[in-house]
Parts: sequence; C-alpha cells; structure tokens
Amino acid sequence: MSYTVKALQKTGPQEPYQIAEIERRDPREDDVVINIKAAGICHSDIHTIRNEWGEAHFPLTVGHEIAGVVEAVGSKVTKFKVGDRVGVGCLVNSCGECEQCRNNQEQDCLNGNVGTYNSEDVDGTITQGGYAQKVTVNERFVLNIPEGIDFDVAAPLLCAGITTYSPLARWKVGKGQKVAVLGLGGLGHMGVQIAAAMGAEVTVLSRSLKKEEAARKLGAARTLATTEEGFFEEHRGEFDLILNTISAPIDLDSYLGLLKPHGIMSVVGLPPEELGIHLGRLIMGGKVLTGNNIGGIKETQEMLDFCAEHGIGAVIEKISVDQVDEYYDRVVDGDVQFRAVIDTATFEK
Amino acid sequence: MSYTVKALQKTGPQEPYQIAEIERRDPREDDVVINIKAAGICHSDIHTIRNEWGEAHFPLTVGHEIAGVVEAVGSKVTKFKVGDRVGVGCLVNSCGECEQCRNNQEQDCLNGNVGTYNSEDVDGTITQGGYAQKVTVNERFVLNIPEGIDFDVAAPLLCAGITTYSPLARWKVGKGQKVAVLGLGGLGHMGVQIAAAMGAEVTVLSRSLKKEEAARKLGAARTLATTEEGFFEEHRGEFDLILNTISAPIDLDSYLGLLKPHGIMSVVGLPPEELGIHLGRLIMGGKVLTGNNIGGIKETQEMLDFCAEHGIGAVIEKISVDQVDEYYDRVVDGDVQFRAVIDTATFEK
Repeated sequence: MSYTVKALQKTGPQEPYQIAEIERRDPREDDVVINIKAAGICHSDIHTIRNEWGEAHFPLTVGHEIAGVVEAVGSKVTKFKVGDRVGVGCLVNSCGECEQCRNNQEQDCLNGNVGTYNSEDVDGTITQGGYAQKVTVNERFVLNIPEGIDFDVAAPLLCAGITTYSPLARWKVGKGQKVAVLGLGGLGHMGVQIAAAMGAEVTVLSRSLKKEEAARKLGAARTLATTEEGFFEEHRGEFDLILNTISAPIDLDSYLGLLKPHGIMSVVGLPPEELGIHLGRLIMGGKVLTGNNIGGIKETQEMLDFCAEHGIGAVIEKISVDQVDEYYDRVVDGDVQFRAVIDTATFEK
Repeated sequence: MSYTVKALQKTGPQEPYQIAEIERRDPREDDVVINIKAAGICHSDIHTIRNEWGEAHFPLTVGHEIAGVVEAVGSKVTKFKVGDRVGVGCLVNSCGECEQCRNNQEQDCLNGNVGTYNSEDVDGTITQGGYAQKVTVNERFVLNIPEGIDFDVAAPLLCAGITTYSPLARWKVGKGQKVAVLGLGGLGHMGVQIAAAMGAEVTVLSRSLKKEEAARKLGAARTLATTEEGFFEEHRGEFDLILNTISAPIDLDSYLGLLKPHGIMSVVGLPPEELGIHLGRLIMGGKVLTGNNIGGIKETQEMLDFCAEHGIGAVIEKISVDQVDEYYDRVVDGDVQFRAVIDTATFEK
C-alpha cells in the first residue's frame, strides 16, 4: 500500500531539518510516481513550517516546486509514461467538478483544493511536500517539463513561475506596454523574465539600485530606486501594469499614482498587515488593484511551454540537503539570487 | 461675442440659489448652442457648490446632466443641426490629441479635461453648468438623445447613466452573471436597470429592505439587507460583480468575500476616508477591486443608444427652479426616488 523515501523533515517550527524516512502511497490507477531530481525553496515553505501562517501539522516535509522523472504509473494513467520529465507545483488535488475546476482554475476549487504539503488529502492524511526522493501524485496535477529546461531551473517555475506568469497573461501584457516589477527576489526575477519575453518594456522598482546589473541581465530595461526623493512624482502615470512581488506593506495610494489611466496593479506578495487605500485613487483613471494566487493546471503547462520556448528558467543556487536550514535564513534576508534549489541526489551522499 | 441666459447661481457655499443672468459664448465654428429642457441634480453638484471638494469658483452655476434641443450651430459643425435632441454630460472639452483622448477616454485626458462647471475652460473662463436656459458646447462633447427618451428622464443618463454603464460594459456583464448593486440612490437605480438589461441577475444590497419594492420594479431579482446577522457568511462567494455606488466607507474585506473567485468590485461612489484592506482578500481567488469615473464620449453615446433600445431612463422627480435648495437637502438625506430634475421652463414662470 505504501513505500518509504528519504525526506527533509521538521518535527517543530524551531527544530532543525533532519533526514527522515516518510511514507508515500503506492500509485492508485490514476497516480504517477515521480523520482524527484530538484526541489525549489519557496518563501511559503518557510512561513508554513515556522508556523507563521498558523499551526502546521508536524512532523512535516514541505516543498511545492518539484521536478523529476516518472518512475511508475497507475493502470489508468494516460498522460504520462515511465521516463517522462515532469513537475508538480502547489496543488495535488481538487474536486474536479465545481465551476472553478471545470474552468481550469483548480487553485480556486469551491470544495477546497489539496495543497502539496500541510493539507488534508482526500484520504485524510496530511500531504508531504517535495523535499524528498519521490512523491506520488494524481496525474491531473502533474505537468510536462519540456526538453531543454534543466530540472533545477524548472522546479521554481512550478510556483514562482506560474505565480508571475498568470497575472501577466491574465492582463494581456505585450509589446508596447510598460511593466514595473516591484521587488527582485524569487518571484520578481521570474516576473521580469516573463514580462520581457511577452514583449513589454520592464522596469524593476527596488529600494536601492543594488540589483541593477542583475535586473538588466534578466531583461529589465532599467531599475529605479523607490527611495529617491521625488520618485513618485517623477514617474507618475508611467506604467500599464505593476507586478507587486513584495510582502512588505506599501503605500498603495502612491504606487497607484505610478499607473497610467486604466493601469493595473497585480499583487502576488502577501503582506499580513491591513493596508490603507483611498478609493478615489482607483476611481480617477479607472485603475485596477488585483491579486493572483498561482494559476490553474492548464495555465501552468502553458507557462512551462512559454518558458521553454523563450529559454526562460529560474536563476538558482543549487544546494545540498544539509544546507536548507542555512538557506532559509538567507532567503528571509533576501540574500539568495534568486532561488535556492535542493539537489535531491545529495540525500544519498 | 456672447449672449445672456437665466441660470441658477450661488454666490457662496452657504447662500441660497438665485436666478441670475449669466453669459454664454456665441458659438465658435465647432460649437453648438443648446436650448436646455431639463437639468438633473447630481450629488457632485452639491459637493462642489458647498465647497465639500475644495474651494469652488463663485458665483457659480452647476449641473452636468443636460438635455435639450440644438438652437444654433457653428459654421463647421457636422454632427448636429438645429432641432436635434441632444445632451451634455460632465465634460465639455479635452485636448483631443493625447493617448487617452485618441483612445476615446476623454475623461482621462492627460492634459486635463474641462468639466462642465467649475473648471477652467480653454479660454481661461470658468465653466458654468446646466441649471440654465442655454449652453454653448463644442460639438465633440455633445451627444445624440435618441427618439423615445424624454428629456427629463434622459438628462440623468449623462452622468448617473454613464457612471454605471461604463463599469458594467467594461467588465462584460451579461447573461448568467450575478451582479450586486450596493446602494439604491441616483447611481444605484441606473446600475440596476442597466445590469438587468444586460442580462444579469441583479441583487440590491442595502442597509434595510425599505426599497425592496422599488428595486423590484427597476429589475432587481431581490434585495438583501447587509445589516442582517450573518449576512456576509451566508452570501459568501455569490457574486460575479459588485457595483458599489455608495460614498460611505465600507469594510472592503467583508464585501470582497461576497465575490466569486475572479469576481470584481467596481467602485463608483467615492468615500473621502481612507479604507483598510488585506491584500490577501484579492490574492485568494484572484479578485479585482477597481473604480470608474464616468466614461468617454463614444461610450456615453453607446450608453444612450443602449438605454433607448431597452426603454431605460432615470426615475425622476421633476422640480421647478425655486425648489432646488430644498431638494439638495433631500438628495443628501437619500429622500429622492431617484433623481431630481429641474424643469428649465420654470425659469419663465
């Protein structure tokens, strides 16, 4: 009924990572067993396992940026065969029947989707994430990773990639448009690459010009320091879209002033605080404030295909299983350019 | 160079209305002179002339819901001839050359549009509004009022109509959608009629059920009292779009909870206060918070044609020029169902 694999596990929010043996279910008829090659570290992993988003279920393995190779398939699997290059993102199940699922928006499943870790699965168990050697996932939630993208640069696309691709696609970013990406971390560095590949002129907005060179290499036309005196007056009405990737609170009114009439601010970084807004800043100029939470499975595949076509991948630091605790602190400090990815081969070293 | 007409004028924010003779310019080659038949009272008129939106230019005549008949045209006017039924809304000029004007969004003119009253006109004079016998307006800002809509029910369409039509059209409201209209005043009663004519199932959200019968007559399927215990839980995730027409502060987080995933709250009532919002309420479900400020001239004509086609007009109380002071207080108290319109024939009584 199940098999065991090595995984990185925490027994409590303050405990260090340890390598444990965890159980995975044997594939059901519609399941795929994936031999994990790379697992990205997302800031959500840290928030979750440090109990910053509520009490997590311990012992817990996190990770929802998973890339690997199909090792076995259930009897009724049609989309995949052994040896396929595949990925898994933030979702591993949903009802499949509600209005949202039927509309390819499984992330908004009205009956509650099943997250890749720390979620109650359909069988009542708590899902365990991708910092592990293998995982069993329903084929509906498995993506094809196109040839030409390495596993380690592909893994972060499954969360950071879709999180930024989805709003840029939804609001039809393209040639002739000016897009600002606020914050250049794991999410921002994907947003810059994708918006530039869509044809937009991309500006990185950051507190300093420290990452200017890195931004340029990712495809940004320029970087602006938001702390410069007069910044918000000088760049008033300049952008068609602002992709806000930072989770620190910002002055919404000021940033909305940077938008052209009918401009859009899409938020993908989540500040826990309540922010203030004068609705007049939306009324005058008919502006849009919106948010985006990953994307559906169909769109995630589109994103992977788009990235492959445009030669886009995450810019990563490859780390071993014993470096994860250290890298969590570096991720929180913004000291990783731009995504840490666990090389799961190091479970065996 | 100019002619004089009778108009309702205030000499200061606390002064009563008096009938004064004001000057209008003789028509330039691209101007139309309109014999005004009806002028709607918009809440903006009251805010402006009571100095609630800053110091107004006194002596002042307000009014930007104007319907009447063309009395004279300049030598190069092509769109109108003497005798045409026409209207003028909130705008009487714009640069005509910027990105927004070229895109038929004159309300967002990057060089500053000219409002129908209390605005500096291109010749440096202060524009005077429609509570008057006649007005001279550039033909670009004059609309055709289709046969079949009386002047008095047409006048309020020029502001309240376009203010509600524009967001409903922008977000493609139609059959199978559930639309909530928050507030049933001058704006709300137009929003209900237009959304229903577009094919949506319309719910009026109000503090009480007092206007339930009126809402039903306007085309609403039902009215819900937002003050009922458990209201926000019971109606969670129900609406595709909420049109917020009230200018009192609301709890944005709670109202965003009433939206389906990808639902839209469009705000057309302007609370002066800063409101609080948790961006997570937009991120989860990819929801949209947006505003709308009237609409462009092309869209205003579309709105008039749509209303004529669907037999929609404002529901009005027709008043005489000596009743305006009294009606201002009634408008502020929400005691007019649903729009007061000045019968300009009463200037001569």
